[in-house]
Formats: sequence, structure tokens, C-alpha cells
Amino acid sequence: MSAAATVMVNLGERSYPIAIGIGTLERLGARLQELNLGTRIAVVTNPIVARLYRQAVEQSLTAAGFKPTVVQVPDGEEHKNLAWLAFLYDRLVDARLDRDSAIIALGGGVIGDLSGFTAATFQRGLPFIQVPTTLLAQVDSSVGGKTAVNHSGGKNLIGAFHQPRLVWIDVTTLKTLPRREVQAGMAEVIKHAAILGPSLFDLLESDLDRVMGLDPTLLVEVVRQNCAIKAAVVGEDERESGYRAVLNFGHTIGHAIEVLTDYRGFLHGEAVAIGMASAARLSQARGICTPAVAERVIALLRRAGLPTDIPGELIGRHLALAIAADKKVSGDKVKFVCIEDIGRVRFEYLSGEEVLGYVGGPH
Amino acid sequence: MSAAATVMVNLGERSYPIAIGIGTLERLGARLQELNLGTRIAVVTNPIVARLYRQAVEQSLTAAGFKPTVVQVPDGEEHKNLAWLAFLYDRLVDARLDRDSAIIALGGGVIGDLSGFTAATFQRGLPFIQVPTTLLAQVDSSVGGKTAVNHSGGKNLIGAFHQPRLVWIDVTTLKTLPRREVQAGMAEVIKHAAILGPSLFDLLESDLDRVMGLDPTLLVEVVRQNCAIKAAVVGEDERESGYRAVLNFGHTIGHAIEVLTDYRGFLHGEAVAIGMASAARLSQARGICTPAVAERVIALLRRAGLPTDIPGELIGRHLALAIAADKKVSGDKVKFVCIEDIGRVRFEYLSGEEVLGYVGGPH
Repeated sequence: MSAAATVMVNLGERSYPIAIGIGTLERLGARLQELNLGTRIAVVTNPIVARLYRQAVEQSLTAAGFKPTVVQVPDGEEHKNLAWLAFLYDRLVDARLDRDSAIIALGGGVIGDLSGFTAATFQRGLPFIQVPTTLLAQVDSSVGGKTAVNHSGGKNLIGAFHQPRLVWIDVTTLKTLPRREVQAGMAEVIKHAAILGPSLFDLLESDLDRVMGLDPTLLVEVVRQNCAIKAAVVGEDERESGYRAVLNFGHTIGHAIEVLTDYRGFLHGEAVAIGMASAARLSQARGICTPAVAERVIALLRRAGLPTDIPGELIGRHLALAIAADKKVSGDKVKFVCIEDIGRVRFEYLSGEEVLGYVGGPH
Repeated sequence: MSAAATVMVNLGERSYPIAIGIGTLERLGARLQELNLGTRIAVVTNPIVARLYRQAVEQSLTAAGFKPTVVQVPDGEEHKNLAWLAFLYDRLVDARLDRDSAIIALGGGVIGDLSGFTAATFQRGLPFIQVPTTLLAQVDSSVGGKTAVNHSGGKNLIGAFHQPRLVWIDVTTLKTLPRREVQAGMAEVIKHAAILGPSLFDLLESDLDRVMGLDPTLLVEVVRQNCAIKAAVVGEDERESGYRAVLNFGHTIGHAIEVLTDYRGFLHGEAVAIGMASAARLSQARGICTPAVAERVIALLRRAGLPTDIPGELIGRHLALAIAADKKVSGDKVKFVCIEDIGRVRFEYLSGEEVLGYVGGPH
């Protein structure tokens, strides 16, 4: 372990580094000088993050010779839509951004998705920099190039693949994150470990308390291993034509729960935690993994303070339909990610009813 | 020459064919069966084109087993904006399009740009088919993957590169095109010939009347040569990082004229014709080409019924500023495309004042 790490995402000419460090926010400007960007730069953030980190980022950029324009959108998933996208376009025009001007996302997943899609489409694509300040964004959403806004017809319905030029992670920003957000982010950490990181899973089992206590050196290592797993998957299948779907472990049921609770009952990570626990039980029931494997997954989620049971009131026909509606393949079957062992998963094609048949009851 | 031709656009895994034929509109459905698309398909068009070709396309798609949904947007550049983009997203949701559902652009450049950007961004990218029905779209805008909508801050300010899976050109659709649109389309034909197609230029000089009389076999050959030139340039430089700018011959001054006349005084091709004639004069004045070369360019434009002089009332400081604002490079110079000989161009870096100094006066 060390106090800083770099993970490369290998995508040919779209390759980029993920730099993970402790207290590195103020060095962002100096690092961006190496990227051959224009002088003008837009920093997209929200008022909560701005209050904490705007000054450090702005000073760092200005000291490095950039002319930053900070644009704020209100906090919350409900602002990740076409109206706020249009707002951002207007502000970028006001800021007179050129084709070589970069957009920086300073915040969590909503800021990253919204400003990333703006960067993907303004002047047919501007350089994009991710500076994620939540655990979920640091270990998951800031890596991989998925950008999107929501539409009444579906979450993330409008979007593009637009890889960042750099992901700049300062793990000390997690100290200001609400506890519940840290727990929710841990769901994606556990997911990465469960599907492809057996040694990360071991590390979490032995050191979960120190990780959740935000020990900086340990966080650098955990975030590094997560980014390495995500980067490996994305490097195999950038545009989700097949293999990348392993990242959907826990997400089929998780999404269905989010839809049925109108995205208000649970944080994304909490819904995914329930989904992973359910997928582990399903895998065990179908003989795909041993009871011990399912138990390790569920126990680690619980230690992280995450829910693992589908709320009783959701179970039934509606949940089956919501599962089936998620990502249909031929014959109304969903491509469901089952766990074989810690660090190994495989796809099963199941109907919504079949999924629920295995995991429907409370436990 | 033959009654049908195919040009490949070579872009690795994003390669696609441009199929050019006579009376081939009704075979579109059969051809699409080869592309492994979903059953649902959206056809985006406008009321004028729909009246002429909707029935043929819909029947062809239905006969081939597709379930087409036709979506109409009003005719005209003023509808290529975020509001009509949102309208299209809503209609695609209504039509329950899946990730493997295709979008077909049936019409000219506005329909192609708007529906292409919709296809680029709906569900992070749907398969896209261009069925261009104007000369401008057949020889230029349907090839190369540029999609966009306008914004008050600039034309095509919001967009993406999204290559089609197929460009399906039926030259007989040009018979219903207004004469002025045929002439305007010829400006881009002459542009391609002037920058990279000396044999096409010879063909146009000897057979312009038959081309403009819409002789089908000759049109197939002319469109084929145009698409081959555009495809070669796009294959070299898909995302306009350098070389692709040769396609801007005539466009620096042309755009400036369009901006100063609020896009209402001239059709795009007409403004580009004035721009090419001006660029030829500038090239001659700077000793980059002989008077004979400039004269051949200007004479061919005039024979095609196109304007070649900058309107007197536009000349002056505003035009110089509009030129300088077009595509700025370091030190406020524009990358101006000069002609050396028929079929050969080169870049010169000039200020707006310098450009006007050579071409400013009426001729």
C-alpha cells in the first residue's frame, strides 16, 4: 500500500489515467497543465460540494494559468434532466468555451453524469475531467465513460459514451460525506470484490471497520483495486455489448426496487445491496454457489450497514414485472448475474417470475 | 458507369456502406434485414418528404417484417433545436424502442442532423440509417457521422459523431427536389471535385447540363465519386482533428455570409459557392493558383446557377469579424483552405482582415 496510486484505463487512443491520492485536490491545476487543454475551463458542481471544495479547486486552476468558470446545478438526481442540460449549455456559451476547453465534474454521480453528457455533446465533444467526491463516484460512476440524463421514459435514457481524459480522486474528500452515502458506496465496492476481486473481498472482510472509518492509506488501496476491476471490465467491453454486464451484479433486482419505490425509498447502493443479497440467495438455490459463498456476501453487506432483504410490501407480481422490464433479451428473459464463488460470476437467462420464485420471500 | 454503386466508409468497426441506386427506395426494408436490427424502427421525416416517400418506405419496411413508427418534424432549419430533439425523445419512448431498434433519417440535412443526434444519444446510441432525399444530403451531409442541433449560441453547437450503419441513396428522389435545392447541392459537388476530384471536375465541365437534368445513370456516378471523396477524408480524420478541414473549402467565408444574413439570405450551398469563388480569387491573388484555375472554379459555379460574388452590402468590418469568429486558431488566425490546382488544396493561416483584403471588393 502507498499514499498514492494510478490505474490506467486502456482504450486505445481514448486511454486515460485514474490518479488516486490523499489531499491532492489542490494539485489538480498543475496536473491539468500536462493535458494540452485550452485556458478556459468549466467546473460543474452543486452548492453543497461547492461550499466544501470550490475554493481549493478554483485556486489550483487559477494558479496553473487556467480561467475557470464555476457552474452550479442544484443537488439531487431530479436535476439530472434535459432542462438542466440546456441550462449548462447556456452557461458554457456564456463562458465562451472553445473546442479545447475542458469541463470538470466536481461532485458525485449526478454531477458526473450530467456534466459528462454536456461534455460529450457540446461542440460535438469537449475534454472531460472527473473529480469525484463521493465513494460511489470514486469507485464506480466516474470510471467507464457512461454519461446520461434521465427522461420520464426511463433513468439514464438519454446519454452517450464519453471517456474522461483524467479521473482525479482525492480520498480525503470522503471525510465530508454523510455516513449513509459512505455505506451506499460500499455496496459497489463489495460488488466489485464479489464479481472479480477475491483478494479485495478478503481485505474488506478483515479491515472493513478501518475502511469505513476512512483510513486514508487503506482507502487509496481500496479505491485503487476497485478502479482496476472496473477499468479491466471497461477495457474489455467499452460500450456494453456483452461482458460489461457482469457489473450488473445485484442491479437487476436493485433497479426493480428503485423503480417500484420511485427512486425515493433507497439510495442506489442500498437497492443494489438488496439485489446482491438476493442474487446470492438465488445462486445458492439454483446450486450455482455454496451456502457459504452466499453467506459471505450477505454478511459483508450487513457489516457495512446495508439492507439485504427485499421489503415485504414490494414482493409480488409488480416486482416480477419490474425485473422483466429492466433489460429484456429474447423471450422476455433477463440476463441475470449469478455468483459462482467469491470473485467469479456467470450469466443466467431467467424470467422475472423465475427470479422472484427463488428470492421472493422475506428472510 | 453503372446503374448502382457502393462506396465503403472505412472506420474500423464503425465502417459502413453507402449504397447508391436508381429506384431503390422500395428495397430498403429487404436491405435492412441484413443488419441484425430489432423489429421496431423509427422513421424520422418531415411533412413534405412524407407526402412523397412515406408510403414507399413504410411498405418496404413492413413487407420486410419491421414495425415502423413514422415521426414527423416540421420542415426547416429552425426546427433543428433542443425543443424538437425533446419531442423526438418523447416519440421514441412512445414507440417503445429498444437498444437494437434503428432510427431512419428520411429527408435532407436537417432531418439527418436532428435524427442522427437523437440516435447518438437515445439509450446511449441506437443504430442509425441515412436515407437522404436531397442532393446536398446525398453527396455530403449523410456521410461522415456528424450530427447536431442548433443553439442560440451557434449553429450545430450541440452534437455528436455517430456513424450510420448504412447510407441508402435513391437518386430518383432528386426528381422531386426544387431546382434551387439542386443548384445548392451542386455547390458541394463542385467543392469535392475542386479539392480532391480532378476527374470529377472534368466530368462536370463536360456534362454539367445532363447532371443538372438529373440523368439517373450519370447521377449515380456523380454521387458515387462525391461519396468516395468524402469517405476518404472521413476515413483519414473521423473527428476533425486536422485533415478533415479540407472539406471547409469555401465554408469560412460561406459561414460568415450565412451568419451576417441570419441564415435567411442564401441556402447553405449558395453561401458556400460565394465562399469558394472568393477562396479561388484569394488563392490567385496570393500566387497559390493560376488565374486559369480560379477561373475554372468560378465558371463552373456560375454554370450551375450559383452566386459567386459577396453581396456589396456585406463587405466590411462585420464580415471580417464574422470570418475571424468562425474557427479561431492561435493568434486570431483562421485555417483557410486555399486551392493550388483543380483537385489540390492547402491550408493558410490568415486573419479575417487579410481574407477580406484579397476578396473584399465586388467583381
